[in-house]
Order: sequence, then structure tokens, then C-alpha cells
Amino acid sequence: MADFTIGEKLKVTLFGQSHGPAIGCVIDGFPAGITPDWESINAFMARRVPGQNAWSTPRKEADQPEILSGLNADGATCGAPLTAVIRNSNTKSGDYEALKNTPRPGHADYTARVKYGDAWDGRGGGQFSARLTAPLCFAGALAKQLLEQKGITIAAHIARIGSVEDAKPDSANPVFPLYALGAFPVIDPEKGEAMRQAIQQAREAGDSIGGAVRCLVTGVPAGWGGPYFGGIEGKLAQALFGIPAVKGVEFGDTQPFGSENDDAFCIENGAVRTVTNHSGGILGGITNGMPLVFTVSFKPTPSISKPQQSVNLKTMQETELTVQGRHDPCVVPRAVPVVEAAAALVLADMLLQGA
Amino acid sequence: MADFTIGEKLKVTLFGQSHGPAIGCVIDGFPAGITPDWESINAFMARRVPGQNAWSTPRKEADQPEILSGLNADGATCGAPLTAVIRNSNTKSGDYEALKNTPRPGHADYTARVKYGDAWDGRGGGQFSARLTAPLCFAGALAKQLLEQKGITIAAHIARIGSVEDAKPDSANPVFPLYALGAFPVIDPEKGEAMRQAIQQAREAGDSIGGAVRCLVTGVPAGWGGPYFGGIEGKLAQALFGIPAVKGVEFGDTQPFGSENDDAFCIENGAVRTVTNHSGGILGGITNGMPLVFTVSFKPTPSISKPQQSVNLKTMQETELTVQGRHDPCVVPRAVPVVEAAAALVLADMLLQGA
Amino acid sequence: MADFTIGEKLKVTLFGQSHGPAIGCVIDGFPAGITPDWESINAFMARRVPGQNAWSTPRKEADQPEILSGLNADGATCGAPLTAVIRNSNTKSGDYEALKNTPRPGHADYTARVKYGDAWDGRGGGQFSARLTAPLCFAGALAKQLLEQKGITIAAHIARIGSVEDAKPDSANPVFPLYALGAFPVIDPEKGEAMRQAIQQAREAGDSIGGAVRCLVTGVPAGWGGPYFGGIEGKLAQALFGIPAVKGVEFGDTQPFGSENDDAFCIENGAVRTVTNHSGGILGGITNGMPLVFTVSFKPTPSISKPQQSVNLKTMQETELTVQGRHDPCVVPRAVPVVEAAAALVLADMLLQGA
Amino acid sequence: MADFTIGEKLKVTLFGQSHGPAIGCVIDGFPAGITPDWESINAFMARRVPGQNAWSTPRKEADQPEILSGLNADGATCGAPLTAVIRNSNTKSGDYEALKNTPRPGHADYTARVKYGDAWDGRGGGQFSARLTAPLCFAGALAKQLLEQKGITIAAHIARIGSVEDAKPDSANPVFPLYALGAFPVIDPEKGEAMRQAIQQAREAGDSIGGAVRCLVTGVPAGWGGPYFGGIEGKLAQALFGIPAVKGVEFGDTQPFGSENDDAFCIENGAVRTVTNHSGGILGGITNGMPLVFTVSFKPTPSISKPQQSVNLKTMQETELTVQGRHDPCVVPRAVPVVEAAAALVLADMLLQGA
Repeated sequence: MADFTIGEKLKVTLFGQSHGPAIGCVIDGFPAGITPDWESINAFMARRVPGQNAWSTPRKEADQPEILSGLNADGATCGAPLTAVIRNSNTKSGDYEALKNTPRPGHADYTARVKYGDAWDGRGGGQFSARLTAPLCFAGALAKQLLEQKGITIAAHIARIGSVEDAKPDSANPVFPLYALGAFPVIDPEKGEAMRQAIQQAREAGDSIGGAVRCLVTGVPAGWGGPYFGGIEGKLAQALFGIPAVKGVEFGDTQPFGSENDDAFCIENGAVRTVTNHSGGILGGITNGMPLVFTVSFKPTPSISKPQQSVNLKTMQETELTVQGRHDPCVVPRAVPVVEAAAALVLADMLLQGA
Repeated sequence: MADFTIGEKLKVTLFGQSHGPAIGCVIDGFPAGITPDWESINAFMARRVPGQNAWSTPRKEADQPEILSGLNADGATCGAPLTAVIRNSNTKSGDYEALKNTPRPGHADYTARVKYGDAWDGRGGGQFSARLTAPLCFAGALAKQLLEQKGITIAAHIARIGSVEDAKPDSANPVFPLYALGAFPVIDPEKGEAMRQAIQQAREAGDSIGGAVRCLVTGVPAGWGGPYFGGIEGKLAQALFGIPAVKGVEFGDTQPFGSENDDAFCIENGAVRTVTNHSGGILGGITNGMPLVFTVSFKPTPSISKPQQSVNLKTMQETELTVQGRHDPCVVPRAVPVVEAAAALVLADMLLQGA
Repeated sequence: MADFTIGEKLKVTLFGQSHGPAIGCVIDGFPAGITPDWESINAFMARRVPGQNAWSTPRKEADQPEILSGLNADGATCGAPLTAVIRNSNTKSGDYEALKNTPRPGHADYTARVKYGDAWDGRGGGQFSARLTAPLCFAGALAKQLLEQKGITIAAHIARIGSVEDAKPDSANPVFPLYALGAFPVIDPEKGEAMRQAIQQAREAGDSIGGAVRCLVTGVPAGWGGPYFGGIEGKLAQALFGIPAVKGVEFGDTQPFGSENDDAFCIENGAVRTVTNHSGGILGGITNGMPLVFTVSFKPTPSISKPQQSVNLKTMQETELTVQGRHDPCVVPRAVPVVEAAAALVLADMLLQGA
Repeated sequence: MADFTIGEKLKVTLFGQSHGPAIGCVIDGFPAGITPDWESINAFMARRVPGQNAWSTPRKEADQPEILSGLNADGATCGAPLTAVIRNSNTKSGDYEALKNTPRPGHADYTARVKYGDAWDGRGGGQFSARLTAPLCFAGALAKQLLEQKGITIAAHIARIGSVEDAKPDSANPVFPLYALGAFPVIDPEKGEAMRQAIQQAREAGDSIGGAVRCLVTGVPAGWGGPYFGGIEGKLAQALFGIPAVKGVEFGDTQPFGSENDDAFCIENGAVRTVTNHSGGILGGITNGMPLVFTVSFKPTPSISKPQQSVNLKTMQETELTVQGRHDPCVVPRAVPVVEAAAALVLADMLLQGA
């Protein structure tokens, strides 16, 4: 019921608020004896860092986590809860007071005030801030390392920005790694260029733009999950909807008619598989050994430069609001590793539970 | 981790398999002192009963639940777990043996065999059967009664069959009850007629067709849910993906650009609300007092009359399979109350937890 | 948070109230492919059946469970939730009305009324009734079968009735099976005779008497459990305190001084073990491979024939109450299999989770 | 299933290992708008600090927590997870290597090695260390503040050291605050003196001594908890057994015969209560409005100066072990606030859940 913990056997708890001293996470249940691959972790976390390129916000963050517990003297996991802390810095809070009583449309400002009252620390969005996806990515990077030891690979690409759609992967035989395509991972470079233009146009218009991330997971054996509320779709969705700005989750590539949608079974190298993979690797809530495929849609970030209509919660009068500051016109590129991280946590938890 | 239980304070456990003696549910945590409105419950459950009309399967089920516990001598809930049992009857298992080693494409047959082995009782789909949505609807009908006492109303309509889309409700000011429109609830009757034709065409082609259900919930106060993994989207999605054949869940009606998607705040009758409702009533994982709106997409039922390619799991040879028997060419109309029921369970649980 | 469900991967939900149509349980997560050993199950359940001997109540119950789901056509578990129903019969409710507003001291009558209000079905104690330990024993018998396949044996004896204590087992090298000693399992037959006399004296005095059950578990490998809230003591205690009338749980046989209490390590047959077993097989919340030993104390059943002071909840006047009917003067003998069952559920759940 | 998290709506996650950089906790779900009473928190935490008196270890710790998140700019809770970090210092690890392969009898060394393998950071007991009760006390102090706002008071005393028992409180009408009696809280000062002598004798003998803590909670209204697995005894026990060295938990003061044990109901000031309180304030798993009373027994700390028999896990030879260093001969006095803290977390969680 609490909000910042996910998982059962691998239990991850996020903490922090945007303008507090620090953010971080506690990872309980991670197996002992594994030396974190710091180079991979840093590379993974770098994929969500803002300010690294033209299409995201120029605000810089140095998200180097300090490890407070969970490693032994040799730097390997020791079975104790692994705690990572990232100090907040470079926070500009000066312009918050004006916003305090005027919730930004599309943001959590209003609902947070209803839930927490005046004590809510709304600077930078408080605990709703996408800042907390940094420790989520840290935990996810560790989980990915665990999964990779078992031959499970997770990779996502930008499926859509606005109305520009990337090419679809061959979901029955995906080519990896998609993310080798760079910080703006797409399958079709021309589509990627069109996406970047769409983002740039939104920026110039003082607007923001939404999109979608498609994630593929290979190497999950058949048999994970279960019927009804034990379905792997529900477990993944619960984590994915935990990512800020996510509004939709879809598995596979459903076709209109059963005759098209039913993936025919075949035998390949002595093993059962399906010819196509419209099911996204899941039948009856259980993995069938084919790649998992799911698409996560993101709303356009609510922060825009255009004037918007809001209300003053003290005077209960309608008012016009113009949000100051530098805004990232599109969260989708930075969300790609976050989607991978959320999926990694769910799958690593299932792995440790015997799936 | 177990598969058939959902909820915390209101905990519902489904049980049964398609061709076993009975199916049913245990509802623990339902408040004492409430007399079930049996007329409403029966009317609600009737909405998912097959065989009642031209566009679903002619197989009949008499889903009258027997109550084994949870009611006092006056027929009111007494605080004990409420147990409802529906006997299975009219089951035709004779043709199962042939299927046993040849999984039907798109069904759970293969993954169930991987998970449970040869002991799986696959007749009628076993515990994956949509039969278990009958007790789910029973529990949901009770939960709806609880919610209605608090002014919370849940209603869904058929949003899409194949490529035929119903009109969209005015999500900021929806007109209720949608389900008064009958057993095939749509907003636009002409679209409804086109949907029925699409189903009939699929039936005649020996095929099946997918679609979507859109659900609206009014009366939920602002402040339910939480940031990150406490978001109400994740809680609802976890339940909705528990419904057989669900492949996607989407909240609200996301617009491409922030300037369109951000719902402006306004004051109406002295209260804060939004002018539009693209967010589906949820900001930052927390309800904002506007109607909840979400759309659940269903794959076409995998049961079709056309020959399909499968494999024999004993001989590990590819083979052709033609599934015998009467099939429902579209599960979407019957899924409308199931979506409402799943949502009702989540929301009633939140209500009892103090949301 | 709901009251009648225990376990994670092996999740058991009890249902029923004393004078409703039926009691029973749903067992979700039990592995497929196991044929229940009905003879063992019946023998196990018979150990808690009242009316079978001189020292318990003459009320008879025919606790033959009907299986509503979870078995395949061959009678093996199939992976679907296993549901067992025991019909209530031979219930005498006539004398309840008089009690309705006058809570019996020591019973749950008063607290149930506070929690559930007037709608509570208090006949026979409602859902607080020890009747529900019948399905608990059914589930426990199945769990024991699962554990026995892994070489894990659970056996309990009557450790104490009133002030009469049984001999203590050699907890480092226990001799099994204790329950072969009959329906009144003790290690020292003379102590058993003294216990029976103590019960008979309580009966003749219109009184009741408390006691304790000691449970031993052999075959649990080292490494189950965890530090702090993951400790196996907490998991077992949570289940054991769920048994009606349990007021204390103690692990091992703690000695006053560390020099006596610390179990020395030794090597036996090439394996680490301890010379003594004061720890009850648990160090730091984790099993050490030695037998688990714990003692569960039961209060005297509150039902006595003597007049007692109570209050009338309607008139809010003090009043004298004499509880009519046949009472079991001591629940401890019948509680022996219930303790084993509760322990079996916890341990089987841990087994399935990979402990 | 993970080990370091407790609670549902108020979810507390401990982290750290004895000789890592830091220990701490994350408290998720604490209500917003409460200014921590730092004086009370520090006073409460000081009660478990070692080195403050003659009867505990001279090792000093400066357990001043740093708050990383959860407070707003005014120092009030803001709804974000509240994170407290206590840096480790004054750790002497030099003598650990010798111990590494020779588990100390009575400690978690052996079972930790089985569970975590060689990577376990056993210095100072790793994550099994009682050091982690410092953040537990921090979280408990906050929870106590929440409870006190609702008129719920928790206080514990040393019930027993070795065979010296303190006087029993009048459990139906306890006098508070017991803890005003100082850092060695007892009801009968003469018994307290005898206890201190017993501890001193154990110290001089190079031995350790066990005991028990009795906790009383007043102000809990009737109606918290539930039957069977929802019982408040199980919830409290699960937390209490999470405290290192706890081996037994007992509720109330059970009398041998029902006629003595059944607490008579009476009317006082127009309200129902019981004349005596042998039940410890709990009937049928539900609070009855009387003070909660429970006793928690602690084993003698396994750290003693006397030579003990152990084994070398590398050579698999038996060996003699003498544990070096300064040892606390009795953990019971310092455990008093820890028991209060664990109880406070459970009760505050129930309070927030609507109990």
C-alpha cells in the first residue's frame, strides 16, 4: 500500500523528493556475491541524464550514487540491503513560491495538495519528480546484470514521438542491441530524424510532445507468470504505470481477427516456438518462451511555456499561469532506460522467486 | 504471488476450473451489515452470461451462486468471509483428449502445460477459463453496491469492435447509465449496429474479432492513489490485466501536445475541477475528482473454426488443428461487466483502506 | 490485511462461520501433479475431531471435505486452486438469542460486536469458531505431504496441561513419530495420565484448563529465513497466533546464561551441526539444519459452566451469565494437529519460495 | 518476503550492515504535516545507546541521524518517504579475519554463511547486527509521536533478568510512565538492583544473561485486529520476533483455569471494560479496549568471553574459539525501547489502515 516500494523477494524502495537533500533507493533481496559492473551501471544511468544533447533539458545532474550499505570490503554484494544515495544539487527553488497555490495543469500539484495538504514540499514536483527515476535506473541496472547472467536481455527503443512512428522490430526474431543505436534509440534512422524534428518543433512552439517506448525482452523461459491476477502482464504493468507520465501499456501487437492474431506453433531446433509473435510472448498470463514485447505510452510532459488556465487554491479564483524555467519538451527519449529498468525489476524479482 | 487473489483489505479469491465440480470465490473483508441487493447482482451477472443473444455462444450456463458463508440469519453480511459457489454443468469434455497434446494457438494450452505439466486439467481451459469471470462478476457486483453507497458509479461501454469505434463519451461530463443501453452497451446505436455486423461477419467466416471496452467511474473523490508504485493506474491495471484476453490498458485520452493535453483547472460551484478530462481523472497517480476513464483492449478470442498450425507435444511434430465446437466470435460484449467488476474490486479495496 | 488468508506462494484462504451452511478453504499455489494421500489426510483431520474420546466434547462432526476444484480427472492436483468444503451440520443454535447481547467473558463475543456490529452472526462464535481449524488441518495435511516428499517431518506433543508437564524431547536428536503415541500424544505416558486427570477434574468442576503444545520439525535444511523481519520465527509466529486460544509462542529452550545457551558447533558425518539445540534450530532468524522446536501456549477455553459476570450491551447493565451446553474442558489435545498444520503451511510456502 | 521491510500503509525499510558506511531507514506512508519532536526522538534513541552506563558495553556510538528526505523546508513531514541515515564510526574490524571461518556459537555467523556464502560481510555481525535497531528506534519514535496524538501510549519495563523478576504492573490499571524510572526501567527498585547485580555477576564471569521485557499499551480503542490470521497478536509477534535475540512472545497473563482466566466484564463510567486483564487486552485477535500487555523474552547474548567449541568451515575441523573484544553481558535493558519501537510501528500502521 505504501507508494515507493516494489517487488517481493527483490524489494526496491525509492526515496527522496526533488529539492530535498538526496534521493536514492534501498534494494533488499539482491543475491550476495555479485560484483556490480559499475561501467555498465554508469552507462545505463547516463542514458536518462538530462542535458546531454539537443533534445532534452540543459539542466545538468551529476547522478553519481554513493553506496551506504550492501557491499562487502571487496566490493561485492554481501546480502545486506544495498542502499544508494544521490545528492541533490543544482536545484533552483526560488521561483516556487509563486506556484505554491496555483497548480500547474497536467501536473500532480493539485492532487498532491489534496493528499498531503499544505505541508507538501512541491518544489520541483516533490516526490512526484522524475528525479526519482535515477535511483530506479540504478536498481534496474543491477537487476539487468542479474538477468543477463541468466541470458535475459532487455532493450527498448523509441516507438513513437507525436505521430512519427519508428519501424517495428521483428518481434519473433528481434535484432539486438537496439540501444547500440545511441542515446536516441530507434530502428529506422530516418524516423529518428523525423522524431527529433518533431521534438524541436514542439520546443520552438513552447509546447511539449508525447510518444511511446517499445520494450523487448529475450531469453525469458516459457512458464513464468500465471493465470488471472498472477499474469505477467499485470506485474509488468503495475511497475510500468509507476513511471511518471505513463498513460498506457500494451502487450504484443494484437491483430483484429483471431485467424491473424493466433500465433501458429512450430518446431525449431527441436523446441516449440511460434512463427509470429503477436502475443508479445505471453499466453494466458504466462511466458511462452518468445520475446516479451510491450509498448508504453507517455503523455506530453505537462511543463510548457505557453500560458495556461489554472486556479488559485487560496482565493479559489481562476487565474492564468505561465510556467517559467527550462523545460524538456519530450520525456520519451530519457524514459527508454526507465522502462527497461522497471521491467528488469519485475523480471529479476520473478527470477528470484522461481518465477 | 499466488494467482487467484486480489486486494488487501477487501481480498477476493477466485477458485475453480472449467470442467471441475464448481467455480466460485471467497470475499474477505467485506463490511458487515449490508444486505446484498440480489436483483442487482443477478442483473449484473446476467450481462456476462453467454447464450442470451445472437452475437455470443449458444452454450447456456445457469450461474446461480450458492452462498456458503458470510451472511447472517437475516441475510445480511456478517463479517465472515463471503463464499459463493457456482456449480459447473452442461460441460462437454468428450472432445478434449484429442486436444490434450496439441495446444491451440493463442490459448494458454501450451504455457499451462509448461507450468503445470501433464497433470493440468485442460478441459475447457482449466483455471484459465473465462468461466471464472462469473464469480469475479459476483464479487464485483457486491463491491459496486458498496461503492454506490458512497456515490461512486462504474459504467462501461463497448468502445470498439475490430475497426468500428463507438462515439466517445464526454469524459468531463459523462451521461449515465451507459449500460441502460442494453446488453450491447454503446453510445451511438448506429455504431453498435455496425459492431454487431462485424461480429456476425467474423462468425460466418469461422473467425473471431477483438475490440475494446471503455470504463468510466464517477464520484471518486480527489486524493485516492499516490506517486510512483502507489498510483491508481497501476492498481487498476494489475486487476484489469487479470481478465482473460486483455492486452492493453490506457488511461484517459492523451493528446499529442502538452498544450492540448493539459486539462485547464477551473472553479465550478465553488470546487476545483478541470475543463477537459484528457488525464482520465488521474494526475500523478492520484485521482483529481474528475471521472476516471480507461480503455481496455481485448484480443480476438483464439477459438476459431479455421484450421491452424500447431505442434504435437508428444511427438514434437508440427500438425494442423481444427478446433471443434461452438465458439463465441467476440468476447468484448460479455467483457463489459467484467471490466466494471475488476475496477469495482480495486476501488472498493481503496475505499476500505481509506484510499 | 484481510483476516483469513495466509501465505505468499502457497496461499490458503479459510472461510465459513460456525453455524453457516459450510466452512472450507481455498489452497492456491499447490504444485500440480500430486495425488493427495486421502488416508493420511483423513487420519490427520481425525486427530482434531471432537467427540472421539473422554476428554473432549461429545458433539460430533463429520468433517468430510468435498473437493470443488483443484483436482484433475485422475484425482491429482492440476494447478487450479484447490477448494475443500465441509458442510455444517448438527448445529444447535436455539440457545443463542439469550447470549446475543451478553458477551461471554474470555470469548470474542464483545470484540466481534465492536468490530462487526449487530450483524455479526455470533452463533457458535461465528468466524472465530475453532470449527475453522478443520479446513486449516485439511490444508496443513496437504502441505505436510509436500514437505514429507522433501524429507521434512512435523510432529507435536502435548507439552503441558495446567501444571503437568510432559517430558521434553531430545531436541537435538528427537525420536519420531511422536504422534504414533495416539490421540493424546505425550512422550511420558505417566505424565499423559496425570494430564488426563487434570482435564477430568476441570470438567467435573465445570471449569476449563489451559496448556501447551510443543512442535518439532526435522529435515529443514540450513538457510531458510533471514535477518530481522524475514526471520522464520516471525513467519511461524504469525501463523501460530492465528490459531484460536494461542497466547504465547516460544522457540527453543533458552537457558539463562550464554555459556549454557550457546549451542556448540561440531562435525558429524562430515556436516556441521550443534551438540545441543537450545536455539530451536534457528540462529539469526535462519534455520541452522537442526530440528526446529517451538512451544505454543493455549489459554483455558473460555467456555465454562460456572456463573460469570458479564454485561448486557443493550441495557449497559452488569449481569450474571451461565453458559449452557456441552463444553470441551481443554482444547490442547485437539490443538496438536492444528499447530502442526499451521507450521506446515508456513514451511511449505517457504519451500515453494526457495526458502 | 524481503527481510528488512515491515508494515503496509506505514512501511519501514531498514538498511545497513554493522561495518558498512552507514545504517538507516526509509519510512514510507508517514502522514504529512507533522513536525518531529526531535527532543523526544533523541531521548528515545538514547535509551538504546550503549556505553552510557555500567551494565552495558563501553563502545560509544553517536547515532545522530541525518535526514535525507521526507521533510519540507519548514521541517515538517511532507509526505515523501522519510529517510534517516546514521553513519557508522568507531568500528573495529581488525579482529574479524580470524573469525571468518569459525562461526561463533549462538550467533548468526553460520547460518549467514549458509545463506549468503563467502561474500557475506560478517564484520560486527553484518546485517544481523543489533546496530540496525538504532534506525528501528528512530522510526518507532516517530510512530510513537503519531500514536500519542491519538492518546495511545506505549511503555515497557524490564520484566526479568535471569531469574530475577520485576513486580508485575496492574495490567488493568497500569501507572505510567514506566520509563520515567530511568534507563533501567523497573517497577520495583529493589528488583532492579538485584537485576543489575545479576548482570554484573555475568560480566565478571565472562558470561552473558538473558531476560524479558514487558510492554504495555494504553489507549488503543476496542476493535483493532481480527480473527485468525488477522489477529493483532500475530501482527505484533511478527515485528517483535524481528528484534535480534527475541525467542518468545506472550500476550497477557494467562491463568491455568478458565474460571480464573476469563476476565469478567463490567461497566465503568458508562463504558464496557473488564475487571481483570489476563487477556492482555485482546479477545479473538481483536483489542477489547483494555491495555495491551505482552512479554518478550530475550536469549542471553551469545557473545561471551569464555572459550567455546566451534568448527572451521574451511577445514571442517572442530576447534576452540574465544571471542575477543568488549561484550555487553545483557541486551535486555537496551532492548526496552526497541520493543516499544517495534510495537509502535505495528500499531501506527494499524491506525493508518483504519485498524
